[in-house]
Amino acid sequence: MIKPLIYKNNKIFILDQKKLPFKEDYIEIKSFNEVLKAIKNMNVRGAPLIGIFAGYGFLIGLKEVLKRKDYKIKLKERIEKIKNTRPTAINLFYIMDRIEKLVNEGIKDFKAYEQEVIKFHKKEISNFEKIADEGRKILFKDVRVLTHCNTGALATGGIGTALGIIFKNKDLIKEVYFTETRPYMQGARLNSYELYKAGIKSKLIFDFEVGIIMQKKMVDVVIVGADRIARNGDTANKTGTFVISLLADYFKIPFYVAAPISTFDLNSDTGEDFIIEERSGEEIKKILNTRIAPCYTEAIYFSFDITPSKFIKGFITEKGILNPPFNYGIKKD
Amino acid sequence: MIKPLIYKNNKIFILDQKKLPFKEDYIEIKSFNEVLKAIKNMNVRGAPLIGIFAGYGFLIGLKEVLKRKDYKIKLKERIEKIKNTRPTAINLFYIMDRIEKLVNEGIKDFKAYEQEVIKFHKKEISNFEKIADEGRKILFKDVRVLTHCNTGALATGGIGTALGIIFKNKDLIKEVYFTETRPYMQGARLNSYELYKAGIKSKLIFDFEVGIIMQKKMVDVVIVGADRIARNGDTANKTGTFVISLLADYFKIPFYVAAPISTFDLNSDTGEDFIIEERSGEEIKKILNTRIAPCYTEAIYFSFDITPSKFIKGFITEKGILNPPFNYGIKKD
Repeated sequence: MIKPLIYKNNKIFILDQKKLPFKEDYIEIKSFNEVLKAIKNMNVRGAPLIGIFAGYGFLIGLKEVLKRKDYKIKLKERIEKIKNTRPTAINLFYIMDRIEKLVNEGIKDFKAYEQEVIKFHKKEISNFEKIADEGRKILFKDVRVLTHCNTGALATGGIGTALGIIFKNKDLIKEVYFTETRPYMQGARLNSYELYKAGIKSKLIFDFEVGIIMQKKMVDVVIVGADRIARNGDTANKTGTFVISLLADYFKIPFYVAAPISTFDLNSDTGEDFIIEERSGEEIKKILNTRIAPCYTEAIYFSFDITPSKFIKGFITEKGILNPPFNYGIKKD
Repeated sequence: MIKPLIYKNNKIFILDQKKLPFKEDYIEIKSFNEVLKAIKNMNVRGAPLIGIFAGYGFLIGLKEVLKRKDYKIKLKERIEKIKNTRPTAINLFYIMDRIEKLVNEGIKDFKAYEQEVIKFHKKEISNFEKIADEGRKILFKDVRVLTHCNTGALATGGIGTALGIIFKNKDLIKEVYFTETRPYMQGARLNSYELYKAGIKSKLIFDFEVGIIMQKKMVDVVIVGADRIARNGDTANKTGTFVISLLADYFKIPFYVAAPISTFDLNSDTGEDFIIEERSGEEIKKILNTRIAPCYTEAIYFSFDITPSKFIKGFITEKGILNPPFNYGIKKD
């Protein structure tokens, strides 16, 4: 499996996802500031992987901080800084809350923090495997699946969520359609790469082609990942997920969200409570360093949209498939 | 106004739309084969402009053909070749039908053909002005308009259709949101350019952001162009138009199509009768010569989708605004 992150001897190496698939470039993350930058600049991306990376990132330079008298204050500052990198994907907050618990308990042993992160990472990996097994229940022989954004090894540090289901149930798949996923082309770049390596028959479409391929009855089921899920099932995910869910509803194509339980946000009743990250419009005026719009053009970049619960047929989690209504029954661990 | 096409002394010069806005490059079209190539390769694009260009293109080398004994056969071959360049946009067929009438009547005078094309072009220009005036009826003070693909001077050789309405009623417009329009970025490249030159407040979004900006209640009305309209009102237009219409329907945002009567296809009862152009998937794997997907990736490229009549609040034409149901009342001239 592709390894988007390697942690060894208190060192982190990440595969620079902005350069894939044209260049496989591992970079060492040497300081806590570089951890923050790698998340903000999207060298590391994918909600589950951001969570895992944030955990390991917290360990960088941690030994030194733990020696200080005011280590509690300093660690809480670090936690805040990590939480402020990207506001929508929740996995980040999930691991930071676990770490904060250790801080509050006055733990000064580096190993305890490291073990917590490794335990979380291992748990997530096994969760992805379980999600992939659960996902089999919604598939059938020669199924044609549509997916959006990258949710494979590169996004998760395990087999993946939506893409993990596809990988593990390859024998059932006739075709995978995957969107290019503007603006960062996670589909065109990363899914192309992962699906090819996995030997799965697949076809790239540009984002707005979802409508016409559904009109042409080319899709049997939609599976996507999630960045944050509210108690009622409203789901924040990569911009366009909501659009696809509306199309799927119109064409009566089942629409599933695959995500570990760590993606559920029990503090949000509905999607209305979510903060939708707005990034600089300048980012969408270039694609891989090629300018597509003149400098005088103003642009808006929302990184996520919200899929209403009513368009989601089920959540494929490590605990099984959860069906609507989602107001009850979702709880952590 | 920007001139995408200049016809002078039996010579045609076109603004190469694939290079805009980064380079304003006029190229002379010197042979009939170059006419066909310019349409196929999308150096000339926009349904109305393709029609006008096809008309002028027919004149290239026409004098020589008219001298031949078998000129009728040769001219009909030319007409067929032009009709085979791109199958969906109808304006091409509209002007070719007019020319074919002259051929069938045995007209051998070059001037007669030239006059027919110039008359068509002038009529279209005045139609666009009328469309822009009619369009005022659906706007109001401080309206925020969303549009898709380029429908301005560059697409029409006149003021434009959807964009023409925006230009001529600038005093009412608070903001224009325009999609980048994958794969050829007609929005990011051409609307950026035209809207800036017209001094209209506007913001670029990537295609799938239509969902979130509607979720955020940022859009009051949608206006798009059309490539072909069936008798019942089903409309073929740039891929994504259908997706936007479904979103507009969901959010109860009025959705209008602006198009000259020459866009109506009286031979098609519904959109089911349309041929949807499928181009090479390779075209979507590059953006302005930058590769976005690896060579081993397969891709599909449908150039259009079909917006069902039920999602269209009205057609803004030179004869007024037509409202559904559209089964009656649509006729040519």
